[in-house]
Amino acid sequence: MSPVGLHRVLEPAGVLPQGAWRLDASPAVAPNEVRIRVERLNLDAASFRQLWEKHGGDGARIRAEVLEIIAARGKMQNPVTGSGGMLIGTVEEAGRRSPLGLRVGDRVATLVSLTLTPLAVADGLARWDGRSAQVPCDGHAILFARSIAAVLPGDLHPELSLAALDVCGAPALTARVVERYVAGREGAAGQVSVAVIGGAGKSGSLSLAAARRAGAARTVGVVPVAGERDALAAAGLADAVVLADARDPVALSTAVTSALGVPADVTVVCVDAPGCEHGAVLATADGGTVVFFSMATSFAAAALGAEGLAADVTMLVGNGYAPGHAEFALDLVRGEPGVRRLFEARLAAD
Amino acid sequence: MSPVGLHRVLEPAGVLPQGAWRLDASPAVAPNEVRIRVERLNLDAASFRQLWEKHGGDGARIRAEVLEIIAARGKMQNPVTGSGGMLIGTVEEAGRRSPLGLRVGDRVATLVSLTLTPLAVADGLARWDGRSAQVPCDGHAILFARSIAAVLPGDLHPELSLAALDVCGAPALTARVVERYVAGREGAAGQVSVAVIGGAGKSGSLSLAAARRAGAARTVGVVPVAGERDALAAAGLADAVVLADARDPVALSTAVTSALGVPADVTVVCVDAPGCEHGAVLATADGGTVVFFSMATSFAAAALGAEGLAADVTMLVGNGYAPGHAEFALDLVRGEPGVRRLFEARLAAD
Repeated sequence: MSPVGLHRVLEPAGVLPQGAWRLDASPAVAPNEVRIRVERLNLDAASFRQLWEKHGGDGARIRAEVLEIIAARGKMQNPVTGSGGMLIGTVEEAGRRSPLGLRVGDRVATLVSLTLTPLAVADGLARWDGRSAQVPCDGHAILFARSIAAVLPGDLHPELSLAALDVCGAPALTARVVERYVAGREGAAGQVSVAVIGGAGKSGSLSLAAARRAGAARTVGVVPVAGERDALAAAGLADAVVLADARDPVALSTAVTSALGVPADVTVVCVDAPGCEHGAVLATADGGTVVFFSMATSFAAAALGAEGLAADVTMLVGNGYAPGHAEFALDLVRGEPGVRRLFEARLAAD
Repeated sequence: MSPVGLHRVLEPAGVLPQGAWRLDASPAVAPNEVRIRVERLNLDAASFRQLWEKHGGDGARIRAEVLEIIAARGKMQNPVTGSGGMLIGTVEEAGRRSPLGLRVGDRVATLVSLTLTPLAVADGLARWDGRSAQVPCDGHAILFARSIAAVLPGDLHPELSLAALDVCGAPALTARVVERYVAGREGAAGQVSVAVIGGAGKSGSLSLAAARRAGAARTVGVVPVAGERDALAAAGLADAVVLADARDPVALSTAVTSALGVPADVTVVCVDAPGCEHGAVLATADGGTVVFFSMATSFAAAALGAEGLAADVTMLVGNGYAPGHAEFALDLVRGEPGVRRLFEARLAAD
């Protein structure tokens, strides 16, 4: 059985589950699969917005279309936006060769997209009014050997865990990159400096905490408005907090360089706005690394920007997966009061 | 004086030269600048195509618009496509603090885009018929401290040098990444394997040669058609050459893994087609690196694809600049007969 679920693809043949039109969502699990009893779907924001607008906010029609999609495709992938979401549920059966380490009864959140997760609904989504992206649901879903699911910890509120798990790739990769710089230096030259653009957000605050744990000597969080500046400063997650428009390369690089005293060894971009590439490159020291986590990043702008600035920087596409990423993010929420306060304030405001 | 040329930006104030509407192209050089006597402009293909289509192939009108753009903007940046090109010329004056190492009389090609290069035309482009992207031109251009220009070597045909310089970032970064893997291993585990997708093209063939020089134990070049397979096999640059559609993730990863015996430690994507991200990720071993050089790369497809496959791979945005990149590429063209044959065949076909 394919670890990436090729055996579940019905049409077109030979593509990956994410690219497939239709998956086989039958409940019997292969030896390397896991079946989840689904308790809630969290629809991707873009997907729910499209459905909402198409149906003018008519919950019954939105529900009917979601049911239709899942029945037709064997997964919840909005055919217009292409996006999915994630789900919460309980492990119902784990194949004996599943490498995921899950046990029957574990309450889990999937960290791979619904766009590639076989799914069947059993209750007609009867408990959902169709007017929220949070969908109470009885049904089942299948995880492959290379799927990812995180056990929801008993000591954290599920909403808090989910908020952290949603962005858990960012702190994991930030820590890995910063550790490499710290390991590569000695003595005074070992002072590794890190800038996080969008430092007050979910991925940003976790990345700041991760950078410090990884041994960064000096960190700066860049934020766009005074309210975020005050919140991040109060959280105590960065050595400096500065205001700058990340889309203005000169302003951004000046702000970072002034706050750190030098350009950053590692710059982490967590701002979901287009046009931050050149500023991030310019804020980074020669030999440094820029990690792009924003989905608004333009590949061409990053590549051509660095070339145009003759900047010898390594630029990473932020991978949402790294081994241990879920546990690391949850541990930061547990152990860093500043991170927790920012997350709780954000959840309260939602 | 700003090393990235901020002092040459006339409007809007405060942006980088690439983002500016208008630059100051006056000929007097600052201590860290260099003035080039221009001999030819190579317009970017997308820019020339737009001009050609707009004016229905009328050379006189195309020439008039290029003159207008340069006069209005102080640089040759097509306002519709946003793209520029590069130029060839001779160093006329080098400021005493220029770090570029150029001497008066050096014949150079600029490796930074015309979109950020101050430029003035002196001859009204009188020798250009407006019907080719190669523009004979008398005029001057300014290089900043962080611009890049390569001295054209006397022992290679200028067209051959230009073709190599155009993609010289790819072999430099490939070598750097492969060297890191080679250095990090020992003994039998030290067998580093490299896949180059689009291995018969300019950047692909240079990357294959670079990977081998950097110590790769086994390399595979993936190509889309039989003609390229035969040409690349004859060039002897890869241990294996295989046919596969890089947009088909399963086909691509199967082809690479079969040819190498294992997934690649380093996968280099040089195919200018959209949709190659998932296949490249799937073809790469856990702990491996994918280097994306194709401008058709989708940032989101790469990021979400790796996450959806739970692939612990490092993904790099191919930076067109690295120290020594021009010399390294020219040296590969000189020293690797297979690279040279592929380049010469390509130039002959153009």
